[in-house]
Amino acid sequence: MLSRNTVKYIQSLTHKKFRNSSSAFIAETPKVVEEFLNSSFRVEHIYATEHWQAPDKYDKELSHLPITIITQADLEKISQLKTPHDVLAVIRISDAQPPATVKGKISLALDGVQDPGNVGTIIRIADWFGVEDIFCSRETADAYNPKVVQATMGSLAHVRLHYTDLEKFLKTSDVEIIATTLNGSSLYDCAPLQEGILVIGNESAGISESILEVSQRQLTIPRRGKAESLNAAVAAAIFLSHLSG
Amino acid sequence: MLSRNTVKYIQSLTHKKFRNSSSAFIAETPKVVEEFLNSSFRVEHIYATEHWQAPDKYDKELSHLPITIITQADLEKISQLKTPHDVLAVIRISDAQPPATVKGKISLALDGVQDPGNVGTIIRIADWFGVEDIFCSRETADAYNPKVVQATMGSLAHVRLHYTDLEKFLKTSDVEIIATTLNGSSLYDCAPLQEGILVIGNESAGISESILEVSQRQLTIPRRGKAESLNAAVAAAIFLSHLSG
Repeated sequence: MLSRNTVKYIQSLTHKKFRNSSSAFIAETPKVVEEFLNSSFRVEHIYATEHWQAPDKYDKELSHLPITIITQADLEKISQLKTPHDVLAVIRISDAQPPATVKGKISLALDGVQDPGNVGTIIRIADWFGVEDIFCSRETADAYNPKVVQATMGSLAHVRLHYTDLEKFLKTSDVEIIATTLNGSSLYDCAPLQEGILVIGNESAGISESILEVSQRQLTIPRRGKAESLNAAVAAAIFLSHLSG
Repeated sequence: MLSRNTVKYIQSLTHKKFRNSSSAFIAETPKVVEEFLNSSFRVEHIYATEHWQAPDKYDKELSHLPITIITQADLEKISQLKTPHDVLAVIRISDAQPPATVKGKISLALDGVQDPGNVGTIIRIADWFGVEDIFCSRETADAYNPKVVQATMGSLAHVRLHYTDLEKFLKTSDVEIIATTLNGSSLYDCAPLQEGILVIGNESAGISESILEVSQRQLTIPRRGKAESLNAAVAAAIFLSHLSG
């Protein structure tokens, strides 16, 4: 049986403040937990019911990991899902330093993307297109929010997130900064890129003035119909599909 | 003051069964209602508080339209929004027949897309890329669901939706049918298309066997990273961006 303190600790990780002070977050379901086990993230503790089938290839690693077998009732106390599913892991937030260089590849920067659903979808899209690093302004929704973690469907385990002073970071970048805006030149006139950081802005305000100033280029998805705008994650997908080709 | 029957009627339009028997749906907020006023849809009745500013250019049309000025309390009774916003319209479901031909342009077909959020996002994306017709299997989520109407942000007023026996319709099509699948040839090897119907499948099952059989081509977005899949709406956006270029 789980102690009250453990339940309280795990529940506290639904709040950004406590995630930051503990440097930990939670991930759920066999599929998502497996992706983290198979990554450079450090899984600190696994809480599983007896129904959980630990993946064979992790048996060795798992023998070093604290695993607590709990009841379905206990899992329901700590789960954030409507239908808890066998396993919940407490995972250390990666303290990976931003890479010394992002030359030779395409990276993403999120400048105040505020909707957790958008951040989750963007992480999944980035993972699909092989983006390794996502740099986020401190105003960007927290990727370790349990809703975002589950929405990425395990992709959060494959990309590196860096919450940082975005303007300062981009200023010192050794690759081109490309701002996605509503009045840049056409994306379709731009050949696929070897390298660069693609900046996605806030859902309503777009990219902030100071970040536009450190950008070398502005690109736009030309509108052919009447819709007023595209969702931020949808726009990110179109840019990555075209530029990382 | 609204009669109990009127309130009951408008509330009934949140259910697909009653929308179908009444051939009507609701749209809310000044922005979305204005898009419908400015379209071929027939707006049947407008319920507005005295705060609603009817757009100037509709004054003439509006003089023929039944408008009922209601209180904020009445608006709250009939609204589906957390924060009702000045106006709600009851609009006739378009009974536009599928066009005789879809030659010379790109159209969409939805084969069992089940999530209302995805259908709403796809309508907005289609509108951005100038798609005029979307053909939906009867298993596809209903676009006149109030949540979908609002999610399209007015784009539902710009595209024609046709719920139909999709297999039968596609069989008689006079343009190429392109299925979006996980094991077709690469989208990036395909030049932009002059015409065709692009089929988007169900979120988990993909495109049904019978629809695959009437398709002339299968196209895939090649994966460059590790994510298992892309969201259906995100995939639709990438296909349309590339093919309708």
